Amino acid sequence: MKHQRLSEEGFGEKGNYTIILPIDQGVEHGPVDAFFATAHPEMLDIDYQVDYIAELLHEGLVGATALPKRTANLLCKKYPHLSKDVILKLNHGNNLNKDLEPSQAVYASSRHAANMGGVGFTIYPGSSKQDDMINYFGKVQEHKPDNVKSILWSYPRGLGYEETTNKTLMHAAYMAAQLEPDVIKVKMPANSMDVVNIVKAACGIPVVFSGGEYTDSQHMRLYAERIAEGGGYGMIVGRNIFQRKPDNAKNLLRDIHKIFRES
Amino acid sequence: MKHQRLSEEGFGEKGNYTIILPIDQGVEHGPVDAFFATAHPEMLDIDYQVDYIAELLHEGLVGATALPKRTANLLCKKYPHLSKDVILKLNHGNNLNKDLEPSQAVYASSRHAANMGGVGFTIYPGSSKQDDMINYFGKVQEHKPDNVKSILWSYPRGLGYEETTNKTLMHAAYMAAQLEPDVIKVKMPANSMDVVNIVKAACGIPVVFSGGEYTDSQHMRLYAERIAEGGGYGMIVGRNIFQRKPDNAKNLLRDIHKIFRES
Amino acid sequence: MKHQRLSEEGFGEKGNYTIILPIDQGVEHGPVDAFFATAHPEMLDIDYQVDYIAELLHEGLVGATALPKRTANLLCKKYPHLSKDVILKLNHGNNLNKDLEPSQAVYASSRHAANMGGVGFTIYPGSSKQDDMINYFGKVQEHKPDNVKSILWSYPRGLGYEETTNKTLMHAAYMAAQLEPDVIKVKMPANSMDVVNIVKAACGIPVVFSGGEYTDSQHMRLYAERIAEGGGYGMIVGRNIFQRKPDNAKNLLRDIHKIFRES
Amino acid sequence: MKHQRLSEEGFGEKGNYTIILPIDQGVEHGPVDAFFATAHPEMLDIDYQVDYIAELLHEGLVGATALPKRTANLLCKKYPHLSKDVILKLNHGNNLNKDLEPSQAVYASSRHAANMGGVGFTIYPGSSKQDDMINYFGKVQEHKPDNVKSILWSYPRGLGYEETTNKTLMHAAYMAAQLEPDVIKVKMPANSMDVVNIVKAACGIPVVFSGGEYTDSQHMRLYAERIAEGGGYGMIVGRNIFQRKPDNAKNLLRDIHKIFRES
Amino acid sequence: MKHQRLSEEGFGEKGNYTIILPIDQGVEHGPVDAFFATAHPEMLDIDYQVDYIAELLHEGLVGATALPKRTANLLCKKYPHLSKDVILKLNHGNNLNKDLEPSQAVYASSRHAANMGGVGFTIYPGSSKQDDMINYFGKVQEHKPDNVKSILWSYPRGLGYEETTNKTLMHAAYMAAQLEPDVIKVKMPANSMDVVNIVKAACGIPVVFSGGEYTDSQHMRLYAERIAEGGGYGMIVGRNIFQRKPDNAKNLLRDIHKIFRES
Repeated sequence: MKHQRLSEEGFGEKGNYTIILPIDQGVEHGPVDAFFATAHPEMLDIDYQVDYIAELLHEGLVGATALPKRTANLLCKKYPHLSKDVILKLNHGNNLNKDLEPSQAVYASSRHAANMGGVGFTIYPGSSKQDDMINYFGKVQEHKPDNVKSILWSYPRGLGYEETTNKTLMHAAYMAAQLEPDVIKVKMPANSMDVVNIVKAACGIPVVFSGGEYTDSQHMRLYAERIAEGGGYGMIVGRNIFQRKPDNAKNLLRDIHKIFRES
Repeated sequence: MKHQRLSEEGFGEKGNYTIILPIDQGVEHGPVDAFFATAHPEMLDIDYQVDYIAELLHEGLVGATALPKRTANLLCKKYPHLSKDVILKLNHGNNLNKDLEPSQAVYASSRHAANMGGVGFTIYPGSSKQDDMINYFGKVQEHKPDNVKSILWSYPRGLGYEETTNKTLMHAAYMAAQLEPDVIKVKMPANSMDVVNIVKAACGIPVVFSGGEYTDSQHMRLYAERIAEGGGYGMIVGRNIFQRKPDNAKNLLRDIHKIFRES
Repeated sequence: MKHQRLSEEGFGEKGNYTIILPIDQGVEHGPVDAFFATAHPEMLDIDYQVDYIAELLHEGLVGATALPKRTANLLCKKYPHLSKDVILKLNHGNNLNKDLEPSQAVYASSRHAANMGGVGFTIYPGSSKQDDMINYFGKVQEHKPDNVKSILWSYPRGLGYEETTNKTLMHAAYMAAQLEPDVIKVKMPANSMDVVNIVKAACGIPVVFSGGEYTDSQHMRLYAERIAEGGGYGMIVGRNIFQRKPDNAKNLLRDIHKIFRES
Repeated sequence: MKHQRLSEEGFGEKGNYTIILPIDQGVEHGPVDAFFATAHPEMLDIDYQVDYIAELLHEGLVGATALPKRTANLLCKKYPHLSKDVILKLNHGNNLNKDLEPSQAVYASSRHAANMGGVGFTIYPGSSKQDDMINYFGKVQEHKPDNVKSILWSYPRGLGYEETTNKTLMHAAYMAAQLEPDVIKVKMPANSMDVVNIVKAACGIPVVFSGGEYTDSQHMRLYAERIAEGGGYGMIVGRNIFQRKPDNAKNLLRDIHKIFRES
Repeated sequence: MKHQRLSEEGFGEKGNYTIILPIDQGVEHGPVDAFFATAHPEMLDIDYQVDYIAELLHEGLVGATALPKRTANLLCKKYPHLSKDVILKLNHGNNLNKDLEPSQAVYASSRHAANMGGVGFTIYPGSSKQDDMINYFGKVQEHKPDNVKSILWSYPRGLGYEETTNKTLMHAAYMAAQLEPDVIKVKMPANSMDVVNIVKAACGIPVVFSGGEYTDSQHMRLYAERIAEGGGYGMIVGRNIFQRKPDNAKNLLRDIHKIFRES
């Protein structure tokens, strides 16, 4: 398989793959847990962070990056030639108050992504806010510029039971697919052999799987294999990249690319 | 009686009938329960599914198909000459979280159905969301193109008592009728002899009855007889068709057609 | 006093009266309780119903009829010369789920009444939804065509105490009056001698009183006398007309007219 | 001090005063408690009421009158030369159901006041609806014609503690002032010596104090003295005027004017 | 470092600082606690207050002032040359009813600030209203004139735990930063050494720290040192200025300026 960047013509085509770097945990978990209390605390410095993201893009180690508004704008300002590899994440939750119903606030509109490559949006299937989120994504699809791709995070939430079973993730993928984004993002299933089912449930829309919490490289490589074998379009790896020291992170990315390339 | 397709001039005329194939259980129950864990698991493959739906339309075994957005668009793209037999289902519920109030999120707008034959919409009479759903359908009616027909699913929900009694279904049909869709869809009543009453409650608007859960062919034929006798405009058969092996499904459809044709 | 039709110039003028036939109980109580399980079950047949309403209008036994959208449209289509005697009822409640907060959903907009004589709207003073309903009626008043009259149902609801006392109905009438509809409709007070007070509370806007549940002719005649004496503009009689056999209904209407005429 | 009418050029100027007659208790408490069960039951008759209000304006005993929509329109129609002394009260609460959260529904829009002198609006600081009410008043200010003055009722509600203390009323007055109406109306403080503080809290916007429930003339004169001494712009006296017999009411008004005039 | 005024070209530039005087506690805590019951009760007089704010601006002791609508408009009217140093605070909470969910009502729109220097807006991260507040600020950013700066108060609220820890304030600052205001305002952290972290979490957007409750001058100077050392853009000092006698307040401001200037 061949690695594709968001800015490339055939992005999303079957038989290829992409690696996306999302950095939205700063909003969700706060910058201490996301950056400061990790093996790579330099990421807290936004100038460093922007340079580092650009470096990974320049070296072709990631094909796109999903960023909140401020980070996205700083990156596009300093590295305008990378703008079409940037996905502007439109909504974000946060874990400041765990008693609240799971939800996401809107931080940016698709108009702000006019010069970028894509917009990202999250829905929480099964949450009490799911209808509002689904309805809102309909408006995003309607109003975004045609040449800006949409990536839909479909994360079951608030169910009171395991959210990464095959059955639940297939359901989440199918719901997302019927909203017709350009790419669907779901969590890696508890049993990584289930990737193939989830891909099928996505009705032909490319699916990228998230790496989830920081874990060891061996697990990540296993995930990559399963995604490649199962027909996934690639990985969206955040904490497992930016919470590693750069050398380790780059080595892990190279390993992942090798696995996809040779599939 | 004569079978009518949605794309035909006289669709909905008294004295005729239609058989509609809805495939929205994927969103509602998830693709495992809807497709994978059935006698016809090939349906999980969206390409297969689209071809199969087209086949049933081509063979005249169904006169219309009600589909969520992605499936509808794939079908219309591959088989554009069948577009006017497609009903775009605009809203969907899901069973991921049974603690939520019964509701449906909007996945598509009637604008997306401009080239199709109809739009489908669900209201839940008796639910705490009923007013919002009814108000929203008013907007659908107002904004849809004139040549796109509206099919209204009227499903009492959240009542805490039997939702398929004669009295409740007549009420649901009457409420739906006063909203003036082109076709009303209700559940098959617990006592199939009640079809005639429900048809009367619909104030002259054609009523199609849903086959409900997967059941044996004998039951389905009995339903068809009762619907035909009772003045129903036809059946909307989903799980009882697409969860059967194709040969069985086609035989069942042929039996149903025979019953209506000879009524 | 002289009977006036909605379509007549001086409708609403003091010193005259009108008899209005509302048929909205089908939505509220369902067609079984409204039509089927009564002495006049033929009303369930919408063609019969439309003809019967037209007959009562043709014979001058009623001066207007308040109908839900489907029924109104069927009547206006078959009897276009009667359109200006039709009041399109815009919102309706239903009793499917008695645990819900009292409310009404919107089934039609005043634009649908452009060729009719009036629009009807219900508010529930004292209910938790009262503000929304009052605000919405403001919009109805603003957007309806000038030559379409507005009739406002003012029904205290959800109070936890008797809703037809003099004090409560005077309050309801006064609230309605300050919204300035063309006609106010309230329930008959528990003590029919209170009509005179309620009429006063309406600030000069004509008030029609509803006959309420099916009751005997003697009661209805008493009501008519009290309304006529008390300065009411007439009666709005639904169930007491359409749930009677036609002959009885017409006799009752003739008796009522006689009472008003001779007042 | 000199009495000013709403229709006069310098209305609201420091060193002058006004007496406003509000008649909105009919909506809030119902016409029985507001009019019928008082010493002046003739007020229930809207024609009498309108004439009486006009009489008080003609005799210069009040400088403005705050009325709900119907009453305001009847007065302006019969006495068009008094229109610029009329304040159209836009929203109203009612006491039909004391279990509801304190709120007010909108009965009229500022467009209806285009030919009148002012609009009146109520906010309930401290209630669960306060944000909606404050936001809505922002819209009123924005959309009302420039030559129509705004009078803001600021009534703390739902606090679970005394709503007429100095501290609470100063808070209410300050909140109202920051919304910049032309005139602020608050309740008379429990300790009438606190008027001076409340006037200060209003940031230079004229404050009128309400007379509150029906009370004896001596109290009313005391209030007038304290308001005049404390720098209040005048009184808004409803029940203490219209619930008195006309002769008593006029005498009381003359006494109040004397107190203000000689201050 | 050099003191910058809001009206100056380079406002917000790194290496400089500003001192902002906010006077919004009158709305939040009421004018008794904010002004009257303090060492500087003259502030209750709005004319005195406006003159005093102007004096502090004229003497260069503060570089901007954040005011509610009425106060802002009075200042701009009397001292039009100071308008570009005024920040119009758009929303305000109040402590009248502590049982309500933490929220803020909108008192002014950014249009009202067209001739001023900035708009101020508060979000409560972690509160049940956070999504609405974040979404609303998006609209403020979109509609405000380009030359009007935005200052975003980011105050975690309703968490049930300490809201001024390093971790929580870094989270609040990071969320605010991703909304891209011109300046972020947060509370002084419990441990003043944490300023440096919070500044980092703000992704390059200048951060001003609030002085909080009235405290002694020594504490304020310590805060100033820590903010200057930690890279903060300055202080926003309300109660610690306007609740002091003018001489003390000016001395404290001079001390603070000295600390920043010499950093």
